[in-house]
Amino acid sequence: MPARGFPASEFQARVRAAQALMAEADLAALLLTTEPEIRYYTGFLTRFWESPTRPWFLVLPSSGDPIAVIPSIGAHLMGQSWVRDIRTWAAPDYMDDGIGLLADALCEVVPVDGRIGIADQMESHVRMPLASLRALERAVTDRPIVGDATITRRLRLIKSEAEIAKIAVAAGIGDRAFDRVSGIAKAGVPLSQVFRDFQRLCLEEGADWVPYLAGAAEHGGYADVISPASDAPLVAGDMLMLDTGLVWDGYFCDFDRNYSVGRPSAAVADGHARLVDATQAAFEIARPGKTIADLFHVMNDVVNPAGAEMEAGRLGHGLGMQLTEWPSIIPQDHTPLQAGMVLTLEPSVAVGEGRILVHEENIVVREDGAVYLSTPQTAQIRVI
Amino acid sequence: MPARGFPASEFQARVRAAQALMAEADLAALLLTTEPEIRYYTGFLTRFWESPTRPWFLVLPSSGDPIAVIPSIGAHLMGQSWVRDIRTWAAPDYMDDGIGLLADALCEVVPVDGRIGIADQMESHVRMPLASLRALERAVTDRPIVGDATITRRLRLIKSEAEIAKIAVAAGIGDRAFDRVSGIAKAGVPLSQVFRDFQRLCLEEGADWVPYLAGAAEHGGYADVISPASDAPLVAGDMLMLDTGLVWDGYFCDFDRNYSVGRPSAAVADGHARLVDATQAAFEIARPGKTIADLFHVMNDVVNPAGAEMEAGRLGHGLGMQLTEWPSIIPQDHTPLQAGMVLTLEPSVAVGEGRILVHEENIVVREDGAVYLSTPQTAQIRVI
Repeated sequence: MPARGFPASEFQARVRAAQALMAEADLAALLLTTEPEIRYYTGFLTRFWESPTRPWFLVLPSSGDPIAVIPSIGAHLMGQSWVRDIRTWAAPDYMDDGIGLLADALCEVVPVDGRIGIADQMESHVRMPLASLRALERAVTDRPIVGDATITRRLRLIKSEAEIAKIAVAAGIGDRAFDRVSGIAKAGVPLSQVFRDFQRLCLEEGADWVPYLAGAAEHGGYADVISPASDAPLVAGDMLMLDTGLVWDGYFCDFDRNYSVGRPSAAVADGHARLVDATQAAFEIARPGKTIADLFHVMNDVVNPAGAEMEAGRLGHGLGMQLTEWPSIIPQDHTPLQAGMVLTLEPSVAVGEGRILVHEENIVVREDGAVYLSTPQTAQIRVI
Repeated sequence: MPARGFPASEFQARVRAAQALMAEADLAALLLTTEPEIRYYTGFLTRFWESPTRPWFLVLPSSGDPIAVIPSIGAHLMGQSWVRDIRTWAAPDYMDDGIGLLADALCEVVPVDGRIGIADQMESHVRMPLASLRALERAVTDRPIVGDATITRRLRLIKSEAEIAKIAVAAGIGDRAFDRVSGIAKAGVPLSQVFRDFQRLCLEEGADWVPYLAGAAEHGGYADVISPASDAPLVAGDMLMLDTGLVWDGYFCDFDRNYSVGRPSAAVADGHARLVDATQAAFEIARPGKTIADLFHVMNDVVNPAGAEMEAGRLGHGLGMQLTEWPSIIPQDHTPLQAGMVLTLEPSVAVGEGRILVHEENIVVREDGAVYLSTPQTAQIRVI
């Protein structure tokens, strides 16, 4: 098992890399507000983000070390990170919930007319009240708050070996839990019970927690892949799909497995084999020199030879500190593949009127080709 | 067990109540962007929000029914709700990720010069890229986007009987899981294993999922309540605390329990008894006519008679669709208690240098006094 956490040198390297990009983009500081952004530069790992009450801030100056501006309830945990400059307030404060303190920190490290970058593009949001953001803009007068030139997104796209090792652990846990599904799912068991028991299996196999489980069980395929479980019992002929995003040391795996309750129909068996073929085809070309769009097309040619676009809109995505990360495997994404990218390959196929199957594997791109992080599924569908 | 979901009439009543407040606040529409806001008016319940990729929007016009403007991947699930006007796009779309469609919907229901309200106060954020928000402001020209006058927050503060019943189910699951901790925790067991096993117990007792577990195990009290579990084994003299936010049908409980590994010290035993006394004192006065600040003071007088402020900043909070909700039990909060408020009472007490204990119960305020939703802990600390 890899060690938990990262050495301080890894965080320092991330900060220096961001600062190099900040110089290129003429940014005097980055302002980070979300869980993965702040964790990426600090290692601050807590499930306390589940509480929406308090805002948390990290300021990355153009040189030097980061400044954490956080609620005092987080001071002890942040104090165990490599960050030394930790400024706190007793949140929640109905008069000024950290904005004065944050503005002071920004004004200290950003000269007048210096630009403050904040994530503003796709897959981002600003995790603070809109009124606070507007108050901050007034308080840092003459220091415009602008986009962050996707700096943190670009850095997070390429995983370090330590990050890849954590994702591999998560994927291994998922593999072992999926291999035990025949012990919890059979005809007559309510889908909601299968969902509960599958999360239990993930924990037993070593997950720290299970932030995501979706799936379905319907006759001959399913109509939807994001619904919560109903209490309806599994019935012979159902296709059961479980799609989990479990976490080990702050890193996700994200893949699914399909199970046929009893013998699968020819349409289902063929559909599943095509999904595995499509995934394997993308796996085989995934290396530097190809693009994200290339992965889309090689999968789409297998699962959707007639060329109609898939409803789900994408056939995979990035993976790491979040269940889904940049980029999206869609025809419009021409990002060149680079060593260190971790991706899900997630084709779907129509298997009848209003019925689909979805399959997903996790891979890491290496200089000389891709490596599976999940244990790839064979063409033959699992039967329970 | 209560039925899952809500009748359409409950959602319709919520929308009509919001529309009455919109008229008072001179708002021509509300724009909702976060999971609890959208679920509150629609019933749209999915763990898919774990993926940050796609924005989701709900438009509440000043009269008539809501309009969902959502990624096509959610159309099937939203189609099962009471919402009939569902407009979708194939997200992610790198050219226009729903903003054009959203602007069209807003322009359709909001006259020129009509104001569009969006949550902007404490405990809120806008879940869409900042660049998208700015593009939306340009696209709906002459229809200013302003604060929502805390309309949704005010409505969510008072729970319906159906909501209270769901929180009660969640709390009952938590009670039963806490009663089984002696079966999973004892000297020698790593805290990380206790965390895994406790989540398993929550699932076995009926939780749909376990979004939150924090806690600690340190000698004679703990320094921090938001850290993830270490692999250090429990040792005699440790105080083990587990604080869970588990979900049943989209509603949380949020309470903790303390366990002494072996016989507790006099300081710990006294501290725990004072926490229970403080909680009970707040419980006894919690009824219409009192305020949130009254709850703070009656607890603070017991746990902190010298009058220094607690570092954590608050002694409880609202509870429901989120682990923590408005309001905060702090001296500055003068919200009058009303029937239907669900609260956590969460005093903390210092039990030595850098060591605290925290205790938490869940209550609902009724016309004639409070009712416990969690089964209240006795003064005597549990020993494992």
